[in-house]
Amino acid sequence: MLDEKILEVLKTNPDSYVSGEELCKQAGVSRAAIWKRIEKLREEGYEIEASPHVGYRLLRIPDTLIPGEVRWDLKAKTFGREVISYKKVDSTNDVAYGLAEKGVREGAVILAEEQSKGKGRHGRQWSSPSKGGVYMSCVLRPRMAPNEISKVTLLAAVAVASAIRRMSGLDVVIKWPNDIMSDGRKVCGILTEMKAEQDSVDFVIVGIGVNVNTPVSALPKGATSIIEELSRAGRAESHLSRVELVKNILEAFEKYYRILREEGFEPIVDAWKGLTAMLGSRIKVMLPGRTFEGQAHTVDPDGSLVVRLDSGVLEKVSSGDIVMVR
Amino acid sequence: MLDEKILEVLKTNPDSYVSGEELCKQAGVSRAAIWKRIEKLREEGYEIEASPHVGYRLLRIPDTLIPGEVRWDLKAKTFGREVISYKKVDSTNDVAYGLAEKGVREGAVILAEEQSKGKGRHGRQWSSPSKGGVYMSCVLRPRMAPNEISKVTLLAAVAVASAIRRMSGLDVVIKWPNDIMSDGRKVCGILTEMKAEQDSVDFVIVGIGVNVNTPVSALPKGATSIIEELSRAGRAESHLSRVELVKNILEAFEKYYRILREEGFEPIVDAWKGLTAMLGSRIKVMLPGRTFEGQAHTVDPDGSLVVRLDSGVLEKVSSGDIVMVR
Repeated sequence: MLDEKILEVLKTNPDSYVSGEELCKQAGVSRAAIWKRIEKLREEGYEIEASPHVGYRLLRIPDTLIPGEVRWDLKAKTFGREVISYKKVDSTNDVAYGLAEKGVREGAVILAEEQSKGKGRHGRQWSSPSKGGVYMSCVLRPRMAPNEISKVTLLAAVAVASAIRRMSGLDVVIKWPNDIMSDGRKVCGILTEMKAEQDSVDFVIVGIGVNVNTPVSALPKGATSIIEELSRAGRAESHLSRVELVKNILEAFEKYYRILREEGFEPIVDAWKGLTAMLGSRIKVMLPGRTFEGQAHTVDPDGSLVVRLDSGVLEKVSSGDIVMVR
Repeated sequence: MLDEKILEVLKTNPDSYVSGEELCKQAGVSRAAIWKRIEKLREEGYEIEASPHVGYRLLRIPDTLIPGEVRWDLKAKTFGREVISYKKVDSTNDVAYGLAEKGVREGAVILAEEQSKGKGRHGRQWSSPSKGGVYMSCVLRPRMAPNEISKVTLLAAVAVASAIRRMSGLDVVIKWPNDIMSDGRKVCGILTEMKAEQDSVDFVIVGIGVNVNTPVSALPKGATSIIEELSRAGRAESHLSRVELVKNILEAFEKYYRILREEGFEPIVDAWKGLTAMLGSRIKVMLPGRTFEGQAHTVDPDGSLVVRLDSGVLEKVSSGDIVMVR
């Protein structure tokens, strides 16, 4: 793409002007064509200084989820090798699911600035305002049986929690199975969906919704955003790069996915345990038609949560909702 | 539907003529309208005698998979409450899957006389010639976790094997997990597909392909049809009603599905064991990258096949292909 070529040239010369002549030569097009594309890039939010007789200089890259920006210098090879981005979409999971049914490769990523029907677990809604969230879905094609799907969910939670920690410095923690919390409030949710035969997974869609720069007023009760948590922690940032966060998530995802394939699920469970604060805590487990309390004991090799009831009996939980009891 | 109303009146008077006047009255339309519909029904294969001044008489119902015929006097309430029929379709499973994604109710059934891309397990083809097969897919919405999906597969095998036995008198048997065999040759295959979240099934599509009146020359090697097996057994039938078979399958499916819901999986496993001939036999298990032999020992409460290796060790098999060893 011509746009990406122009940006590449400008980005590799961050501190100097690139002459129009040089740009034409490297992009292989006319001055008029360059000018037209520069105008288009400015409309997309790129700040490009044009100095007569000197050349062009890139001043600012917009923090919109542009595929070229996500893929720029991305360390992941599989995750993000195909990136499709929407201003607004019903649900990135539904779009990814449809593409996966048509055969899109593992690692394809769907991004959106806003979702009109963002999906949560069990048919719930996932609030997806346009003001600073990241809504993304990845297509995976793991060779596994459907009963191994929890591995992918836990892996995704590990990847996203690590990426948020690395980017923000916040000590976010995982709440089983797949929420990411900061100080008891939700900053991120993960929804895993799959198409499978009885004994083999066809594909998995991992949907990730992160409240990054979202004002709390735009979020439902119990939810928070990374920027809000940073502010509460007395930090000065007023903005976190969503593009960088997406790149960090993709890179972490690729790393842990490789570990799962090469070393098995145990190191993933270990990483998960290191990123949660709930083990040892008192929790309430809500299943359809049944609710009970106990202590979150551990996570099983199959990804289930093991709860120690007050009677001392250990109970495995593989679905349901968890509430932390104070 | 007017057609179904006319057929209903004719069917409830099997041995007598129904006057045109009477038909008009009961259907609430004009003589001209009746005549037009009778012509259309004849085109569909219904033999309807018209005797001047006497009336109409239904002589023969075609054995095509017409929704009205499948639903006529159907004992099942849920299975088949919605029936959609195609002359030719890519894959009934794909059609059913698409409808399920749009929210079609449990028990919806897709039928086809022919499939151009009939699907077998693991991306294989299922040969689906137009000459006498039944290709059907049912939409189920069981409240279960994805790892319980084998229950549905085994249940389907029990329902279909029972229905074939009842209709044909042939002692067909189930080969784990979901083929139905007559004398070592395949008469029916079942393909279970699902959409699921990590901990809950959204819907299951059970695809059933039965070679009913199909000439063996139209089938791949190793396959047979019910009518061929009847002929080999010295029986005189030249045709088995496919509509009746579909009805029998739907009724059996509903019965065992209710048992699963009300009494659990154990009675299904028991029924499955009574319909197989493989337990105690020597088998070869083919997994991706690994093949081993042993004796088919039993079926586990979770639907896995338990194989006794020559060393005496029991090994659980939850996927893969089985070959009977002579």
